Amino acid sequence: MSKEVKAWAATSPEKTEPISITRRAPDDEDVAIDIKFAGICHSDIHTVRSEWGSTTYPLVVGHEIAGVVNAVGKNVTKFKVGDHVGVGCMVNSCRQCTNCQDGEEQYCLSGVVLTYNSRDPKDGTITQGGYSQYLVVDQAFVLRVPETIPLDKAAPLMCAGITLYSPLHHWHAGPGKRVGIIGFGGLGHMGVKLAKALGSEVTVFSQTNSKKELGLRLGADNYIATSEPDVFSKLSRKFDLIINTVSANIPLELYLSCLRRDGSLVQVGAPEHPLQISPFSLDAQRVGIHGSMIGGIAETQQMLEFCGEKQIFPEIETIPASYINEAYERVMKSQVKFRFVIDVSTM
Amino acid sequence: MSKEVKAWAATSPEKTEPISITRRAPDDEDVAIDIKFAGICHSDIHTVRSEWGSTTYPLVVGHEIAGVVNAVGKNVTKFKVGDHVGVGCMVNSCRQCTNCQDGEEQYCLSGVVLTYNSRDPKDGTITQGGYSQYLVVDQAFVLRVPETIPLDKAAPLMCAGITLYSPLHHWHAGPGKRVGIIGFGGLGHMGVKLAKALGSEVTVFSQTNSKKELGLRLGADNYIATSEPDVFSKLSRKFDLIINTVSANIPLELYLSCLRRDGSLVQVGAPEHPLQISPFSLDAQRVGIHGSMIGGIAETQQMLEFCGEKQIFPEIETIPASYINEAYERVMKSQVKFRFVIDVSTM
Repeated sequence: MSKEVKAWAATSPEKTEPISITRRAPDDEDVAIDIKFAGICHSDIHTVRSEWGSTTYPLVVGHEIAGVVNAVGKNVTKFKVGDHVGVGCMVNSCRQCTNCQDGEEQYCLSGVVLTYNSRDPKDGTITQGGYSQYLVVDQAFVLRVPETIPLDKAAPLMCAGITLYSPLHHWHAGPGKRVGIIGFGGLGHMGVKLAKALGSEVTVFSQTNSKKELGLRLGADNYIATSEPDVFSKLSRKFDLIINTVSANIPLELYLSCLRRDGSLVQVGAPEHPLQISPFSLDAQRVGIHGSMIGGIAETQQMLEFCGEKQIFPEIETIPASYINEAYERVMKSQVKFRFVIDVSTM
Repeated sequence: MSKEVKAWAATSPEKTEPISITRRAPDDEDVAIDIKFAGICHSDIHTVRSEWGSTTYPLVVGHEIAGVVNAVGKNVTKFKVGDHVGVGCMVNSCRQCTNCQDGEEQYCLSGVVLTYNSRDPKDGTITQGGYSQYLVVDQAFVLRVPETIPLDKAAPLMCAGITLYSPLHHWHAGPGKRVGIIGFGGLGHMGVKLAKALGSEVTVFSQTNSKKELGLRLGADNYIATSEPDVFSKLSRKFDLIINTVSANIPLELYLSCLRRDGSLVQVGAPEHPLQISPFSLDAQRVGIHGSMIGGIAETQQMLEFCGEKQIFPEIETIPASYINEAYERVMKSQVKFRFVIDVSTM
């Protein structure tokens, strides 16, 4: 049976407000989830503000979703009522292409079905995200949340967590590897915790030392204020992997000069303007610049198990739904340590 | 004994002309080489014209050198008088750093000693390149030229050959892989021949179809005129590796859209302006942009053996020294098929 539920939607680029939305009846493959918490991701704000192309209003955003299974379709084998589960940035994909077959659904060649603002192949509607009480998702795109992870802290792992875990995993962060994390916000702090837990030596690159003490406490071995003089020359060719979580356009050459031969700079922030890169800064040590987009479902599950085992959680500030608009303003000013999580019981 | 020999030098950014230079007496580790042929590389022209920073005039350029051993130092074990040998872009390195130890001397962390316009650690002079009759080089930086390669055709392998072979080798071009080569000039035509000989399916991206027939004859499976409409949408996600040999700034996003998941675009041309890359074009399939700079000595030797065995040679136009200035003009206008080689006997 379809269900009318409370949600908090962007009704225009300027405003989110409470509305009521209808969720479809679960089909045989679906899991119905009572959402408990939803993280606020910078992408939510880009979408709400129509900065990434067309947004269909009203739109419920939110793709860092944690909750409890309310019902399951008859073919659902992976989950049962009462299970703790999560949903991230995607809710379906073609499942046929080579990338889907490889478990890299986020790179689906037919285009992944995003958790919000995508066309849902199951019912033709525009997908509506996690700032709501209830959600119906195919079991193939639902994650098991280990009992060792509190649900409020599980929510940001679904995007911020996997966005950092996937490149760390793909580019083999681990013992003996030096990892740099540019930016120490919602994504960056997860990068520090995960890279450290994986066994790497971790350095934060931040504009100032204002969060240095916190950075070291959360696991960084080094914390560099990039505004200080001569910082980069001292770090020449020291790093195997640098992950850039910053959405502003920064001078990437300086960071490329910190990479060892065959090192990688991975861009997970999404700056508005094109990256500008001197070809000589790539030639110098055969270094590369890569993109990385969340992670596949299997890798996300692996990340959750890892975080449960190592007790790696995001630092969160839990807020009521009525605070969303203000929270957005604070995210834009980097005034959050480090992730807002909406308590959905306040809707 | 040091030796006075004829050479052809840039005396200013505008002009190259005949001069006489002194080559040092070979030390115990050195090989003295009677140069027979020297290729003309685009880098020679950039250096002559001071486009890449300071050039010390007069300067003899040329780093595609093929000749015959005239004498060897007493510790030289790898070569004997009469051997066919080659010298490429480098004549020494620190030999201590991790890159040198790994056989990747081109990425020497102390800075490689280039064949021209570098400070020679052996005698403190500025290194002088291959547009000359005779050269003295440490045996560690001398290559054996297989007898199955004519010396005139061996010369361009020392830079153009290895510049393409190294990324093809490093990024595993071979059977089942689709390789794109952007640009069909001195570098590009070697890329086509080498990629084909390695077993890849090879596609040339050229502005027009003017060299299409030649491209197919030299080994390309496909030849794409990028000025034609809808070319890129048809090639979406088809390639494992694309090597960009073009020195102009071209719209790299279009080529990134042709890469499969985890594919690489390798920049070997050296555009004047920074590369401009949308972060979304990297995220989309976790693709990367890399640099690559010639190859190590061991890899260059491997390339020479491969070319000897497979009979892979550059297409050359042999010229007398007196034609160098005119040849430069023709290189700048892309009016050469495909590499000028100076017959040093004409000096």
